Amino acid sequence: VANRARIVAAARRAFDAAGPLVSLDAIAREAGVGPGTVHRHFPTKAALVDAVLGAAVADIVADADARRGSDEPVEALLSFLEELVVSGAAAHDLADRLGAGGDVGPAVAQPLAELKEELRALLERAQRAGGVRTDLDEGALAAVVAAGHAAYVHPTGGRLAARVVLDGLRVRPS
Amino acid sequence: VANRARIVAAARRAFDAAGPLVSLDAIAREAGVGPGTVHRHFPTKAALVDAVLGAAVADIVADADARRGSDEPVEALLSFLEELVVSGAAAHDLADRLGAGGDVGPAVAQPLAELKEELRALLERAQRAGGVRTDLDEGALAAVVAAGHAAYVHPTGGRLAARVVLDGLRVRPS
Repeated sequence: VANRARIVAAARRAFDAAGPLVSLDAIAREAGVGPGTVHRHFPTKAALVDAVLGAAVADIVADADARRGSDEPVEALLSFLEELVVSGAAAHDLADRLGAGGDVGPAVAQPLAELKEELRALLERAQRAGGVRTDLDEGALAAVVAAGHAAYVHPTGGRLAARVVLDGLRVRPS
Repeated sequence: VANRARIVAAARRAFDAAGPLVSLDAIAREAGVGPGTVHRHFPTKAALVDAVLGAAVADIVADADARRGSDEPVEALLSFLEELVVSGAAAHDLADRLGAGGDVGPAVAQPLAELKEELRALLERAQRAGGVRTDLDEGALAAVVAAGHAAYVHPTGGRLAARVVLDGLRVRPS
């Protein structure tokens, strides 16, 4: 388990630094283990990518969980969503997968289910506080989060544009 | 001029029905003129596409202009932007061009400048009414409008998701 965690951590650093095409040998060197050890834990590159994505989602889950106790539940939801869309490729991939409910690997499925649960909890708290719209179904919500990501990566967009998009989830002033 | 306008109107219908690859001969038939007449007014397909896009933008300008007198300036701005993003491919193209400040043909340049002027006027009225954020520059605003379009065309999005995104332009409740 220690080796497995070390390989996943090394793979995250290597993917960040060199992209998804980085070799398993390079990841083994980064982890300080032999190629055979990598292969024993992750027989395919896809399995390793899946584990890395799962670890990234688990970090997001931990972030969401830390926000659940906030006494400003609307801000807790919106600032969490802001981090979610800003965290870039992972969030984009995530939004696609959340939106499509598509095929995720086994290492991603569980943290993804946890993330959905965290999101539901953050959303419900913000809605109960009266600060967030209650008339959006899961699909419309996913579309708004994806739009937040689009605003962030837009050539003239950025963090402020993304936050403006997500602020649309607030109840309208009457 | 009458023939020119008739050809542009016919081309808009033909592009809508058959896509941008529709032949100039088909457009001439639709307009009830000969192919030579089309060629005299529009020596290239690009010139005709440009005129069609210009006419579409001019319609949007007329829509914006009609909303300038509204006594609900915030709603006037947001519902106009909603129509803008919902009008689909044209708006998307428009958002790209507005965002990039890229190369538009001569028939588009003038209505596009008018549209920017109309948007500025709608925005300023809504801001003076105290209902819309004043801290976004033109680029961030373009990114939010593009995000509204992204929400509309998202597989699980639609008009409500787009409107939620654009509602983010409202001032936050304090």
